[in-house]
Parts: sequence; structure tokens; C-alpha cells
Amino acid sequence: MELKKYILREDEIPRQWYNILADVNLNPPLGPDGNPVSPDQLAPVFPMNLIEQEASTERWIDIPEEVLSVLNIWRPAPLVRAVALEKALDTPARIYYKNESLSPPGSHKPNTAVAQAYYNKAFGIKRVTTETGAGQWGSALAFACAQFGVECKIYMVRISFDQKPYRKIMMASWGGNCIPSPSNETKAGREALEKDPDTPGSLGIAISEAIEEAVADESGQTRYSLGSVLNHVLLHQTIIGLEAKKQMELAGDYPDIIIGCAGGGSNFAGLSFPFVLDKINGKQIEIYPVEPAGCPTLTKAPFVYDHGDTARYTPLLPMHSLGHAFVPPPFHAGGLRYHGMAPLVSQLVDEGLLEPKSVKQNAVFKAGILAARTEGILPAPETNHALATVIDEALKAKEEGKEKVILFNWSGHGLLDLTAYDSYLSGQIKDIVLSMDEIAECEKIYADFPKPQHLKHK
Amino acid sequence: MELKKYILREDEIPRQWYNILADVNLNPPLGPDGNPVSPDQLAPVFPMNLIEQEASTERWIDIPEEVLSVLNIWRPAPLVRAVALEKALDTPARIYYKNESLSPPGSHKPNTAVAQAYYNKAFGIKRVTTETGAGQWGSALAFACAQFGVECKIYMVRISFDQKPYRKIMMASWGGNCIPSPSNETKAGREALEKDPDTPGSLGIAISEAIEEAVADESGQTRYSLGSVLNHVLLHQTIIGLEAKKQMELAGDYPDIIIGCAGGGSNFAGLSFPFVLDKINGKQIEIYPVEPAGCPTLTKAPFVYDHGDTARYTPLLPMHSLGHAFVPPPFHAGGLRYHGMAPLVSQLVDEGLLEPKSVKQNAVFKAGILAARTEGILPAPETNHALATVIDEALKAKEEGKEKVILFNWSGHGLLDLTAYDSYLSGQIKDIVLSMDEIAECEKIYADFPKPQHLKHK
Repeated sequence: MELKKYILREDEIPRQWYNILADVNLNPPLGPDGNPVSPDQLAPVFPMNLIEQEASTERWIDIPEEVLSVLNIWRPAPLVRAVALEKALDTPARIYYKNESLSPPGSHKPNTAVAQAYYNKAFGIKRVTTETGAGQWGSALAFACAQFGVECKIYMVRISFDQKPYRKIMMASWGGNCIPSPSNETKAGREALEKDPDTPGSLGIAISEAIEEAVADESGQTRYSLGSVLNHVLLHQTIIGLEAKKQMELAGDYPDIIIGCAGGGSNFAGLSFPFVLDKINGKQIEIYPVEPAGCPTLTKAPFVYDHGDTARYTPLLPMHSLGHAFVPPPFHAGGLRYHGMAPLVSQLVDEGLLEPKSVKQNAVFKAGILAARTEGILPAPETNHALATVIDEALKAKEEGKEKVILFNWSGHGLLDLTAYDSYLSGQIKDIVLSMDEIAECEKIYADFPKPQHLKHK
Repeated sequence: MELKKYILREDEIPRQWYNILADVNLNPPLGPDGNPVSPDQLAPVFPMNLIEQEASTERWIDIPEEVLSVLNIWRPAPLVRAVALEKALDTPARIYYKNESLSPPGSHKPNTAVAQAYYNKAFGIKRVTTETGAGQWGSALAFACAQFGVECKIYMVRISFDQKPYRKIMMASWGGNCIPSPSNETKAGREALEKDPDTPGSLGIAISEAIEEAVADESGQTRYSLGSVLNHVLLHQTIIGLEAKKQMELAGDYPDIIIGCAGGGSNFAGLSFPFVLDKINGKQIEIYPVEPAGCPTLTKAPFVYDHGDTARYTPLLPMHSLGHAFVPPPFHAGGLRYHGMAPLVSQLVDEGLLEPKSVKQNAVFKAGILAARTEGILPAPETNHALATVIDEALKAKEEGKEKVILFNWSGHGLLDLTAYDSYLSGQIKDIVLSMDEIAECEKIYADFPKPQHLKHK
């Protein structure tokens, strides 16, 4: 029997997160006056303990015991050698994946949801609001809030709400309250509906609604929670890469190539940032964030200052952006339908430490089906973006006759995304590619904003 | 950080199944002539290697390396101390569960699906047919067949097919072909449709269809596969209990009470049979199979000879049965909607080694929601039957002030059963209880069949 899993014991779970802000320089978020945002300005939106974490430059940050105890429901997560996939591809490459699909909500998202629910609770917050695209994040936060006894309200992008009715029931089962966005419950929602009553919605709009509701609570007991993009979210996800590093050592291997899908950037960052540190220190690694050709933020949009949400409630963030008003085409990977990208991921791309790739939808689902029939797990549509690139690289290694070591993040399972597979299997998936003309149009919206500096790591 | 998982290393997976036929006497299956069925008579239905396994009385049977290698995708499965549930119940009981929800199809079913796909392949079979109720079994067999390159055709009970559209896509993603039963593709299906064009279908009818198609293939390359009931199926599931035994040792505990839901009996048997051996050898354990009050096979129906399917294609099996024509009421736990029960489980109940319980649907879902909000995993509706009884016993232990050790099987997750949770959360679940009058009516169908003997274990 060939061993293919590298398992850490429950008590070998990492006790600290890796904070890449210790090693990387970042343009600051800017307020409405064009000056860097102060912690106080963020206080109505986030609890102060998370605001402090957002700006911390400590390299290692302790994970609270209460957080570890909930993460332990499914962590440490296995590192798996994809033996059956390698065989199907007849490649000399050794392919490893971190299996993040085993959490109760089915993705990497609870790694930060649990931490955020804990910090909100610890700060005395009774209720959190958030947005969700595909529903992975909303489910994760509902799950996490149930663990700590915090109320949870979720604005779900309407197209996903309609396509994925199971998601809202899942959130409700954990006690969360999920409604479609845009809604009539907020000013931002009402404005979006006035402009286009039939809008499919967008993460940008849903974020605006969730922030608006949190800030409007005069009791001060509600805060907003974001599932990606921000520094503290990416920080919480680094447990993926820290575990993977220990497990690659158990396997006696080290990756030549690291691959993750990237929507807001959090699962990608979670796996890759601990290895980016190695790269900064001289290791030879290629690191690929992979995005859909229909929402090509990193591969085609410029590095600019832009808002994280449509109603412009957030500060200006330094990132690759298609514009805060961009409504992505309705392809089946809701988690990758975001106009922007995490400032930290954007910074590393600008600096040349990461090499972004984009892939088309049919190749994405073809990869997912092959993975399901070999490795057994039905991947989330988002994960299929990583898989398509993994397969490309494994076939390239075969052509070149090289024993490349590839590590990727199996960010979630697709059991609640089966309509997408149905579309693919019945030949109804379209290859949506955003043209440079369309992108030029998108860019106009931030033309007058300040521009970020091109920085180098420390 | 409190440790709560008991994990075996990948190479600590059990290498043999426990065959309870070494220790228990069983009435033989009877053919149309009233005589015990010979292996040859079963040859058109099952491959000979599985027929031999069905009748074997060897206590320990080696698990083939190829089977272990696929089981290793998710096995060994964790044993978990349900610390959060205990706390919510404020009970002195120590509650442990075996987490079988982590397999790619989401339940215990692939434990036997993988073995059956392997043995069919090894016997030169190209194609297997089967039935499925809730869809757990059909998904598991499609998954397993993809691993060994065997074709898979699934007849799915119509009410579940309609209620759970995601299931057929899941099977298709793994390459399986799933159609609603009764169908027009078989004589058994056409007869059922003639009798009642609007029938919700039943496992009994779907089994008839799948057997008929397998036997009708004149090339001899198709066989039928059953997801529960038979001895070899229960044998393959004993890996659950064998792992649990090692893990309870790691925990330094031994169960006073063992609980599993029972439809055909396979997940229940898988967990409990290795402990039944201890009970036969003198250990004090209470062992409870739990069934729905709407399909109370073990708690209310007599121990008789009856057919396993509606069209009476199967031999007469010695079991607790509501009659082969029984169409269970349409409650939301498709995996427990079967008129009969595994002969081995029925035998142990008849002999007094097991004490069956039945539970009502609202208590079942209430238990599931509590489990989801404490332990984090959203349970399958079937698992909720076990959970309802676990909670009853834990509260009884509290009343009595006793430190009872309870072990149960978390047989699957409910991510594809969310409509059932939706019904419960919106107050639409009915407590269906089958009356003794209704049962007396059911019993007429086997009144003239031979009667099984009351046997004692070896």
C-alpha cells in the first residue's frame, strides 16, 4: 500500500500565524481626505483587536487557544500526494495538495471566520454582518459564529443566492440569516436596485450593504467581517502554508511551483506566503495565483488605488482592480468574481515575486472532472482554476522530462456547486474572456484617484 | 488546547475485516423452491468472489491492497470526543463519535462501494447496476467505480431523485448514470408505473430494476451491487468499528452504549459488530440500532422470511420486515426508507444482543441542529436518528448522575440534504408514526412464507 497522505497530529497544529507585513512593504490605505487611514477611523467597522492585527508588523502572531480548539475540528489538514492524478497525466512531476475541503463548511474560509468570530466576541461584539459570493464565506462565518455564540447576518450576491438555494439553508442551519443582495434593507442596496432592478449583484455591492448595516447600529454591538482581501484575513489563512511546510518536510520534498486560485486572494496567500518568505530569502520557487479570464484582475488590470466596495464606503486600497463598479460576468466560480485583489497579493505581483495566470472556464471544469475521477474529491469551481494550471504545469514537466514538484491548494469541495458541473457536462459553459477594450473602460473609474508607489520588500 | 480527536496514522488502517458469521448463526437465504440458495444461483447477480465472501465463516478476511489504497483517501477516519455537545447538554456522559462524513461522497457508504467495485473489476466485470434511496449509496458507487474504471448505472427512488437534483449531477461528475425509479427501462419498473403512475418509488422497486438489468445482460459483463443488507456489505463496513476500537484505546475509554442509525443496517453494523464480539465474550455493552418511527422495521415488525425487493427477484431473507410491497411514507431520511433489515442485524435483535429504538422526525432534526451548532458538522438526516438517541441517553446519564461512555456513528454529512433542514426550520416536518394496524396490514404479504428459526450465537 502506497502512503500518500502526510498527516500532522492534532497537537502539531501551528501555534502562530505568519505575518508577511514583517517582510513586505505596503502602500497604506487612504481615507476620503487622501491621508492614511487611522485605526480610529476603522473602529465603527471592525473590533479594535482586529484593527491592530491589520497593521501589525510582528512576524509571528500567537493563535489564541480558543481559536485553535475550533480549528482542530478539521485541522491539521492533510497534505496529499496526488498519485492517481499524476498517473492519469503520466507526468514525472510530483504533485501535492493541501486538502482544505474537509472543514464543515467545505472550504478554507473558516480558517479566518473562526478567528474573526473569536476576536469579535472577545471585544464584546454581539453581531457581525458580512457579504458572500458563492456562499463559501457566508457559510464559514455562520459556522464560526455558532461556535462562539455571535449573531450573523449575510448579504449574498443575488445571482449566487438564486443559483445556490442550498447555501442559505446551510447558513440558517448554523443560525445565520442570509438575504440576497442588493436588498431594500440598506441605502447602498436600494440605489443598486434603482439603477438596475434585475442586477445579478456583485461582491462590491454586497460589501457596501454589510458595512452600512454594521456602522448604522447605534448600540455599537455590531461589526463587519470580511472574508478575504484584508491583511488580517490573509494572516489567518497562513496556517495552511505553515502546515504544508512541515508536511512537505515529512514527504522529503520542497515545491518548485506553488499554485492557488485567487479571487480576493486569501486561500492563495494562505498557502503561498510562508513560501514567499523563503523566496525573499533566496529560494528558487515559482508562485502562481490563478484567476478566471472573465475577471482578470492580476493579469490584465493595473496596480492602482481603488475602493473595495461599490458604494465607496471602504478606504482606498492599493491593488490590482477592474474598478469598484465592475460587475463580473456570471460565470460559475462566485468566489472569484471580485473586482479587486488583496493589497498584499497585489503588492507581491507588482514587485515580481508572483506570476499570475488566467484560465478559461471549459479548461477549468475539464480539470475538475479529471481530478474528481482520479483523486476522488469533487473540487469547488474555484479550486478547478488552480487544478487547470497544475495540469498545464505537470504536462509541461512531462514534455521537458523534468521531475518538477508542484504544490497547490485544494481550497474547497464542490458539493454545493453541482449546477455548475451540470452546465459543464451538458456543454453549456462559455469561455468568457474580458477584452482589453472592456478593461480600458473599467479603468476610467479610478483615473483621478491617487496612485500607489512601487515598493520593494524589506 | 483540549485534544478531542483520536487519529490513526495512514498505515495503522486495519488490514482485515471482521466477519461476524464466524461467531453468529444465521438462517440461510431460501430460493423459489424453499431450499437454501446455492452460490451458482446467485452467479448471474453477483461476481463469484463476492458470493464466496457472502457465505464465508472465516473470522478475519484480508482487505486487498488496492482497496486499502482507495480507502486511504479518507481513512483512517477520526474518532472525536464530542466536547462541545457534552457541554451544551451539561452531561457527565463522555460522548465519542466516529466521523464517517469525510469520505468524498460524504458518508460511510464508500467503505463497501470501493471493495465491491474492486471485486467486480477483479472478476472481469465491466459494468455494475444498483439502486439508491437518498443518493448516498449511488454517489458512493459512482465514486468507487471511477477509481477502478467500471461503468455504473444507478436507479434512484423517484421521490429522492426529485427532492435532491444535486445527487444525480454528483454521480454524473464521477461518470455514473443515474435515472429515476420506477423507470420504463425494466419490466419491474413498468409494472410499478402501471399500478401507480405517481408512485414516489421505493428501495424495493429500485432494487428490482437494478437486478433485472444486470441479469438481462447476455454478455455476462454486468453485475448488480447492493449498498446494504447483505453479509459482505456489512463485512466491509466493519473497518469503522475496528478503527474505533483502536481509537477508544487511545482515548483510554470503552463504550457503555453504542448507537447507530439503521435503515438496511450497514453503518450500524460497521460500527457495532466488532463490539458485539466483545459482548458475546462477556462484556457489558448496550447496543442500539435506531430507526424512524415511520419505518419501524426492528421495533415493530416481526422476524420473518421475506424478499429484499418488490418484484421478488431476491431470495427469501430472514429479517425483520414490513413486507416487500411496503412503500414507506416520504420522510426526509431516504437512507432509512427500507421495508427490511440486514439479516445479521435482524438475527442479533431476535437473539437479544441488540436493543432497537425508534425516534420521531422533529426530535431527529432538533438533534441535528444542536449537533451542527456545537460539533460544527451538519449531519445527514439519517445520522440525526442516532444523534436523537445519543442526546436522550446523555440526558438520562445526567439525571442519574452517571459517567456513561457513549459511542455513535456520524454516518454522513447533510450538505446534500439541506431541503430537509429547510422544512424543519420552517416548521413543516411531520412526526410520522406507523400504527400497529398499518403494520398488521403489511404483514399479510409474507404470511404464507416459511418462518426462520430462532437461533443462538456460536
